[in-house]
Amino acid sequence: MNTYSSRLLEDAVNELTRLPGIGRRTALRLALHLLRQDAQRSEALGNAIIRLRSEVRYCSRCHNISDVEICAICADHRRDHTVVCVVEDIRDVMAIENTGQFRGVYHVLGGVISPMDGIGPGDLNIASLEQRAVEGTVSELIMALPATTEGDTTNFYLYKRLHEKVGTISAISRGVAIGDDLEFADEVTLGKSILNRVPYHKTF
Amino acid sequence: MNTYSSRLLEDAVNELTRLPGIGRRTALRLALHLLRQDAQRSEALGNAIIRLRSEVRYCSRCHNISDVEICAICADHRRDHTVVCVVEDIRDVMAIENTGQFRGVYHVLGGVISPMDGIGPGDLNIASLEQRAVEGTVSELIMALPATTEGDTTNFYLYKRLHEKVGTISAISRGVAIGDDLEFADEVTLGKSILNRVPYHKTF
Repeated sequence: MNTYSSRLLEDAVNELTRLPGIGRRTALRLALHLLRQDAQRSEALGNAIIRLRSEVRYCSRCHNISDVEICAICADHRRDHTVVCVVEDIRDVMAIENTGQFRGVYHVLGGVISPMDGIGPGDLNIASLEQRAVEGTVSELIMALPATTEGDTTNFYLYKRLHEKVGTISAISRGVAIGDDLEFADEVTLGKSILNRVPYHKTF
Repeated sequence: MNTYSSRLLEDAVNELTRLPGIGRRTALRLALHLLRQDAQRSEALGNAIIRLRSEVRYCSRCHNISDVEICAICADHRRDHTVVCVVEDIRDVMAIENTGQFRGVYHVLGGVISPMDGIGPGDLNIASLEQRAVEGTVSELIMALPATTEGDTTNFYLYKRLHEKVGTISAISRGVAIGDDLEFADEVTLGKSILNRVPYHKTF
């Protein structure tokens, strides 16, 4: 349906439709919602969107999103800067931070190696990770990349490139999620969780 | 989760979360998508949102959204200006226009009477509808309001207020949707479709 009686409305719907997971119907619903709101609400949203992209900065050390040169995590002296968790993007940093279980620092790759999508090692923040490793301050790299072919490829690439420069390279454990029934776990996950079993007294 | 390492990101997520049907997780996904795009994409979206609300105008006759004083439908002399279809909002205008079955004009109420939400007749575009009726150019009002208690209330209110000023007041037919199985239709709809049956030769 393209019978918009207003070019302004059509423009807004077209732009909203470019967002992932938002079709024309949802975009129209959002646009009509904005029309019902105060003008200052639309202005706040529009400006937040424009400023996010135009003023965003990334931590020069870990590439996490940050408003300042060095992000709050990298600037926190109470954290263990010798343990670096390697993640795909900043969402993963937030997810791990929310667990409250990690007191080291991060390195955000900005993606994973994916020849199908034309993403090679040069497109990721790997050189700066190697630099951190070469500086000799990293005792352990924890790989927390997605459990996909691309994630595995990236893990393997990083291992080959960095294992002589870093004391330990580990990977987060994979297994049956807490609270999940065994019967619903896929075979690969369940298989891994048996192969990678841990001493019982360590599970407390 | 409120561990955003950037105020810009936090602002954008907060504003996006105000949109209907968008939770914090989706808002974050949208914000990260915007970060990966060119800056001009974010600017186009942000500006479209701001301009939509600040520059929007409504047709002074039917209250449909419009970039000019009189909308394209009201300005179209090939349409039948004596038949006015009364709808809740501009989405309904689009939906009816998309059928290609209606050659009259519209009147957008901007809502329906809903005491629960504090919406009375004075909050809707009813005075201007009465004005159109009083001018004597309307031969038929077609009520196309939602089949809800609020829609019925509004229909009844408009009928009482306008039936002496307009030749005919009709309502769109309700019944079993084309392609639907009878067994899945609710009782009220199926009952209505039997009570309001039409001569067979009119169904072609």
